[in-house]
Amino acid sequence: MSKTYAGRFFEDYAPGQVIEHAVPRTVTAGERALYHALYPARHALYSSDAFAQSCGLPAAPLDDLAAFHVVFGKTVPDISLNAVANLGYAEGRWRASVWPGDTLRAVSEVIGVKQNSNGKSGVVWVRTRGLNQDGVAVLEYVRWVMVRKRDPEAPAPETVIPDLAPAVAADDLVVPPGLDFTGYDVTLAGEPHRWGDYEIGEQIDHVDGVTVEEAEHMMATRLWQNTAKVHFDATLRPDGQRLIYGGHVISLARALSFNGLANAQLIAGLNAGAHANPCFAGDTVRAWSEVLDKAETAAPGVGALRLRLVATKGAPFELKGDDGKYLPDVLLDLDYWVLMPV
Amino acid sequence: MSKTYAGRFFEDYAPGQVIEHAVPRTVTAGERALYHALYPARHALYSSDAFAQSCGLPAAPLDDLAAFHVVFGKTVPDISLNAVANLGYAEGRWRASVWPGDTLRAVSEVIGVKQNSNGKSGVVWVRTRGLNQDGVAVLEYVRWVMVRKRDPEAPAPETVIPDLAPAVAADDLVVPPGLDFTGYDVTLAGEPHRWGDYEIGEQIDHVDGVTVEEAEHMMATRLWQNTAKVHFDATLRPDGQRLIYGGHVISLARALSFNGLANAQLIAGLNAGAHANPCFAGDTVRAWSEVLDKAETAAPGVGALRLRLVATKGAPFELKGDDGKYLPDVLLDLDYWVLMPV
Amino acid sequence: MSKTYAGRFFEDYAPGQVIEHAVPRTVTAGERALYHALYPARHALYSSDAFAQSCGLPAAPLDDLAAFHVVFGKTVPDISLNAVANLGYAEGRWRASVWPGDTLRAVSEVIGVKQNSNGKSGVVWVRTRGLNQDGVAVLEYVRWVMVRKRDPEAPAPETVIPDLAPAVAADDLVVPPGLDFTGYDVTLAGEPHRWGDYEIGEQIDHVDGVTVEEAEHMMATRLWQNTAKVHFDATLRPDGQRLIYGGHVISLARALSFNGLANAQLIAGLNAGAHANPCFAGDTVRAWSEVLDKAETAAPGVGALRLRLVATKGAPFELKGDDGKYLPDVLLDLDYWVLMPV
Repeated sequence: MSKTYAGRFFEDYAPGQVIEHAVPRTVTAGERALYHALYPARHALYSSDAFAQSCGLPAAPLDDLAAFHVVFGKTVPDISLNAVANLGYAEGRWRASVWPGDTLRAVSEVIGVKQNSNGKSGVVWVRTRGLNQDGVAVLEYVRWVMVRKRDPEAPAPETVIPDLAPAVAADDLVVPPGLDFTGYDVTLAGEPHRWGDYEIGEQIDHVDGVTVEEAEHMMATRLWQNTAKVHFDATLRPDGQRLIYGGHVISLARALSFNGLANAQLIAGLNAGAHANPCFAGDTVRAWSEVLDKAETAAPGVGALRLRLVATKGAPFELKGDDGKYLPDVLLDLDYWVLMPV
Repeated sequence: MSKTYAGRFFEDYAPGQVIEHAVPRTVTAGERALYHALYPARHALYSSDAFAQSCGLPAAPLDDLAAFHVVFGKTVPDISLNAVANLGYAEGRWRASVWPGDTLRAVSEVIGVKQNSNGKSGVVWVRTRGLNQDGVAVLEYVRWVMVRKRDPEAPAPETVIPDLAPAVAADDLVVPPGLDFTGYDVTLAGEPHRWGDYEIGEQIDHVDGVTVEEAEHMMATRLWQNTAKVHFDATLRPDGQRLIYGGHVISLARALSFNGLANAQLIAGLNAGAHANPCFAGDTVRAWSEVLDKAETAAPGVGALRLRLVATKGAPFELKGDDGKYLPDVLLDLDYWVLMPV
Repeated sequence: MSKTYAGRFFEDYAPGQVIEHAVPRTVTAGERALYHALYPARHALYSSDAFAQSCGLPAAPLDDLAAFHVVFGKTVPDISLNAVANLGYAEGRWRASVWPGDTLRAVSEVIGVKQNSNGKSGVVWVRTRGLNQDGVAVLEYVRWVMVRKRDPEAPAPETVIPDLAPAVAADDLVVPPGLDFTGYDVTLAGEPHRWGDYEIGEQIDHVDGVTVEEAEHMMATRLWQNTAKVHFDATLRPDGQRLIYGGHVISLARALSFNGLANAQLIAGLNAGAHANPCFAGDTVRAWSEVLDKAETAAPGVGALRLRLVATKGAPFELKGDDGKYLPDVLLDLDYWVLMPV
């Protein structure tokens, strides 16, 4: 029998299954430095221990998206190795900060399955939790993927579609213990714009662009121990290109959004997300944001902002065509909550 | 007199010489993170402090091959700057774990010389030891290289060919103090296959492929402070390509071998190795393994497996042609010992 | 009003202004490892804690140029986002070592302005200080840049040209407390040449060349949080190339200078510097040095050497044409002080 793992197929999933993902990972200052080398990340809370301490935290935590990528990467061999498409995210919450020295692992529960009408594939919903070495959940989110069937003749399972919230309620966002923005230094943070300065419906062009290289996205994706072949093996496509991990585009866009959202320090919730079109080396990625909602929090000086973050190869503020489909230049449409000084 | 160091030539070596290599190097969590960014490394013992602790170690050590590359890199200016070819390895043993914060240096003893019949070059054998800041040997191995003569008219030295073991005896492998696999967690490690599940002669196709970029192999080779010009200077070859450091291919193949050998946690011995053909950017590297031998150890729950690891640009399980020579697609043929749970 | 920061223009600067730059940055062993991956850096004092301790320091500090890049990067959004050219450096001094865990920020004072005769731009001089988390200055230097005017009709300010020293006086160089080269180990350092072995006027060809890739210089420049668009966005130039950050060339040349100047351990002063021609991916960078001056210091066993460091794509020892202009192959002409064992 082959000792090589071929991944799970659609018929291998059933609601209620709990999958403990392999290869726990200790993250350190090394991962933090690499995050800054791979993305133009400048949010001060993650860049500076001293700044984080001035905001009530013991030190600068690992970037929220680095934590997300590590947890996501753990799930790939079990969830998306045979996935045709990464369809969506929902109910994502960052529940505890990740510190250098923490060891992360991931556990997923299957919460929905639905065979496609073509009988060749189906959609699988999982709720994934990232846990640290103490078993504390640092992150949880739902994602759903389209997965091939091993045997097209296998019977369709009973359809179970989970009831997912359209967005995380502001009251459910977790503010890190101790976070206090009452003494927040806008000069050191880089921009004067506070929570009160943003209006629902406001759009921001983040102006800068980054042209992506193969070596960069492969190093990032390897760092997260994401094993999906399409990101690394140039022989899989006739054009010799490697598909860039969608999370790489999320981090690029988030980092670019510093210019206009420098004070959107922490990511607290992930409401929805679509990888609208594939990204390849040579693409120049730009970003724009739209303010979707605002909420207060109980923490001193801390407000929450719900943002749409769009990564694009084209012009800002263009998203979908008359047919309701994403325009070809759009790479990412992300709906998330941030915490910032009021 | 020129202050630039031109390296040693064949006539500069004599059996019994001891060469203390320059530029000691402190390795840290930064090197560990970079190792994970540069190679698809997933062996849990090196990925997770918590997993390593569950196996009786104080924390995750630096990857065995990262330790090898640092030590090897130190030797390059003295041993292989004027080398025509890296001919072989033997009697390699990892003797002590390397931890973040350790400082490594290297010392080599010349143990053999043999001038080639053409009179223009010769073979030099050295036994190299890597030492930590306490003078403890962490690693030792023999390698031999073909080195140019400075002066083709220089007289040939007396031939001394060292008597090298065809393989490290299983009894001579060093198991790190405290290593205990009796409570080993195969779920977290990623695969169920234990030492007892492997049979001598068994072959494993590791399936995945990684296409290599210039930036990646140069960053890796620089990280190991390997100064051989051919890896960095595109003007040295008419085709503008840089020769990829053979050790980069070793690490790629070892990381790819996770898929089928996820529990082959530690590398304990290096029996032999051949860099069969050069590797260049754009090559897609794949790997397959063959089980050569098995042995028990005195450590609780720990078995040893002797493996052939082959890196190739082509199909699995193809190694040599009818002429006994390596096929053109084969990049590496490595013979090594690993430690894994019984 | 747009929330995006467009940077300052010439008319926004006035002598006496103090600009506190944003985004403090904690540097760690991760940055040190990346420095070794991005540049062929081998100076033992920065490579090895044990070597640094043998020289009287508590551990290996962060490379002097890494500290420079972090501080320089902080200034880019305020000083050079709309710069046409980076014209020069003067009066640079490294005043305190930077250790892993330190948090750096930067403050600049405008010390001169001069509108160009074309009325469209002007020269701005700033004195920048890098500060650690205790407010201690770790580094200071003057640089001047040509900056566009927002409004060509804006009136010219009164011209103020600062009085800058042609070189830092040897007596003003800061030797790190405790530095003692009386027990210096030239074998571990890699070369026998001491301060006394160098003569004023001596030229050294550092021999090696490194061909630069887009992914490498972008990762480096991002690591220093330098946000200048020209380094990252391939759509800004018709040829699709990205301009390489001048500091990347400084670090490459300094690292290459190990071969012939291995004992030039610490950088203590920056007297002058010109980025003679732009550098692009695909260029093979080489370096040569010239000894400009020598001085003793009060520290045990420590001498100072003033060096010209030239990075070039061409032959060594060629700098300027008959017209007094830099030859097209010359990338960098740097005038700096180092500390080395007498």
